[in-house]
Amino acid sequence: MPNEVPPTTRQLRSLVTADGTLELSIATVDTPTPGPGEVLVRVEAAPINPSDLGLLLAMADVRGATSSGPADDPVVTAPIPDRAMKGLAARIGEPMPVGNEGAGTVVAAGANDDAQALVGRVVGFAGGGSYSEYLVVPAFLCMALREGTPATKGASCFVNPLTALGMVETMRAEGHTALVHTAAASNLGQMLNRVCLGDGVPLVNIVRRDEQAAILREIGAEHIVDSSSLTFTDDLTEALIATGATLAFDAIGGGALAGQILSAMEAAANAKGGEYSRYGSDVHKQVYIYGGLDRGPTELTRDFGMAWGIGGWLLTPFLGTLGLDGMLRLRQRVVDELETTFASHYTDEVSLAGALDLDAMATYARQATGQKFLIRPTLA
Amino acid sequence: MPNEVPPTTRQLRSLVTADGTLELSIATVDTPTPGPGEVLVRVEAAPINPSDLGLLLAMADVRGATSSGPADDPVVTAPIPDRAMKGLAARIGEPMPVGNEGAGTVVAAGANDDAQALVGRVVGFAGGGSYSEYLVVPAFLCMALREGTPATKGASCFVNPLTALGMVETMRAEGHTALVHTAAASNLGQMLNRVCLGDGVPLVNIVRRDEQAAILREIGAEHIVDSSSLTFTDDLTEALIATGATLAFDAIGGGALAGQILSAMEAAANAKGGEYSRYGSDVHKQVYIYGGLDRGPTELTRDFGMAWGIGGWLLTPFLGTLGLDGMLRLRQRVVDELETTFASHYTDEVSLAGALDLDAMATYARQATGQKFLIRPTLA
Repeated sequence: MPNEVPPTTRQLRSLVTADGTLELSIATVDTPTPGPGEVLVRVEAAPINPSDLGLLLAMADVRGATSSGPADDPVVTAPIPDRAMKGLAARIGEPMPVGNEGAGTVVAAGANDDAQALVGRVVGFAGGGSYSEYLVVPAFLCMALREGTPATKGASCFVNPLTALGMVETMRAEGHTALVHTAAASNLGQMLNRVCLGDGVPLVNIVRRDEQAAILREIGAEHIVDSSSLTFTDDLTEALIATGATLAFDAIGGGALAGQILSAMEAAANAKGGEYSRYGSDVHKQVYIYGGLDRGPTELTRDFGMAWGIGGWLLTPFLGTLGLDGMLRLRQRVVDELETTFASHYTDEVSLAGALDLDAMATYARQATGQKFLIRPTLA
Repeated sequence: MPNEVPPTTRQLRSLVTADGTLELSIATVDTPTPGPGEVLVRVEAAPINPSDLGLLLAMADVRGATSSGPADDPVVTAPIPDRAMKGLAARIGEPMPVGNEGAGTVVAAGANDDAQALVGRVVGFAGGGSYSEYLVVPAFLCMALREGTPATKGASCFVNPLTALGMVETMRAEGHTALVHTAAASNLGQMLNRVCLGDGVPLVNIVRRDEQAAILREIGAEHIVDSSSLTFTDDLTEALIATGATLAFDAIGGGALAGQILSAMEAAANAKGGEYSRYGSDVHKQVYIYGGLDRGPTELTRDFGMAWGIGGWLLTPFLGTLGLDGMLRLRQRVVDELETTFASHYTDEVSLAGALDLDAMATYARQATGQKFLIRPTLA
């Protein structure tokens, strides 16, 4: 591909209006110029991750979306429920670029050595606005892929790989020795299984359907429990006794599941016997909610003693606690294992305009297991 | 009072039977002999704290209690709801001594110097089974009161004072600068107000009734919000903006309150302005549940971003994190300020048998603000 840089670039934008409407469109803007420590990337591939949907869709009702304009330059509007508008106040009237990560070729760079070193390389990168044809990114947020690795294989090299590694790092930092993961058959969940199998970390996978269990069995997962089963509580408790897991990462958020995990961890702790304590076991049990597949309230029955915690977990602040060395160690592992441990699979490839197709939107908004979209911004 | 030690001692016991009945009685047992580092205390005063009720009443339905036997040696039975029995399995058939703290005169001591040094002193102590006439306690769990301080003034020198101080210590250790407290007009809540006023720590008091607000205004509390008010959310947010509090201690546990506090903290953080983030503010907001006035489920709406945590908080493990020096520093402050900051007031004084009077039980089981019982085990 020629490395000529066009004067303008197209970029997907998400706008929330004061009257409660989401408006998605493709803006044409001047192609930005990289500063000293920055590079200009021609974005060849960018995934739609669950963590992109909050900014992209702004909790709008996608079933009520309508589209206008030409097929290659559509404008999509959809109504936003009133109860969601409170949390969106700060972005009203501001068209926002979308996309947390992607991969592509560095076609220009600023004066700094680390930026110049990337010219001509295919890089995976993190940085807002990856649903763009061309994007300026700080050089330190780029991972140069191995020679010959295409951009499509590096598009998801930040969010899911670092989240999976971050969960295991958090486990170690907080003194746990095994993990529980919900929505466990997701792309991320499969990566986490491969990381845990590689590192010898026992992992309890919680799924909601038999097909999801089958996906995980296929890749060698040892502990799989189905929350839709009548024997879920017993199955989970047994898996927790077997693994000793006292830390869970929950992608679902709403409903009873987070509390059920804490209850089963407490039952597992008490199954070891020991003296009665009116305050429950002294084993600290922790659930981190990192997603919101169920946006309803979280309900905790608190039948799990006093040694427990639940909280939000977010990748970026966690990475901030690692320091530069820790961060580089994780990134090197991602580059080394990009086509094995951290391989992503996509069911759909779309252009920028294709990402605003109403059928496509309805599909990726559902966040169904196995379905994953890749945007190819520089596709015709 | 003579220091002759009788050969037997009476002790309140709580028994859960396999058929789901609570049985409270007064056992007569051999008076124990202190080991080398222990002392024998004639217990002259012991409070009934909310934290004693779990062990004492075992979630039984006190309204269904019946009493038999003579007035000075009653046996009380009450039914325990089925759903509560699961958590009580480990104590079935085991008559348990009750009472977390008390005060009295050291009438005998083991050979060690620190134990011997306490002979004849009036001490406050922590240690299970304080609802006894005589009790053996490790010397290091005794605080010698100033000469002339009666046992009634030292009876509550561990649980509430160290909990109030522990909350402020936790705040500092976790990087917060102000506190929120619920059920704030309690005996503990009043102590916490005096500690915070003394230390210049801003404190937001959440109460449920006007009378409770009045109690706190009386002792100089600055920020008082009433959760039964129609303007509660706004009032709380305003107080959080004024104080910058990002840590709450919640005695209630069930219902929406813990989540409402997190939501208001998030609103207060966002009121400062700043850039929109789809993940909410980056201010960490924390609620610790340390009591269970409402035993129903905790419901979290999660409209407070991703930087949040909620968890159990328990005094004893917290004290374990302080180390010996920290612990001694806190204890010295309690002794120094026992009749000011840490003064407790009791509405009822009862004998061991009087604590099993059905009317008395109905009263203290309600945990009404302002009502506090003191057991005088060595009263006739």
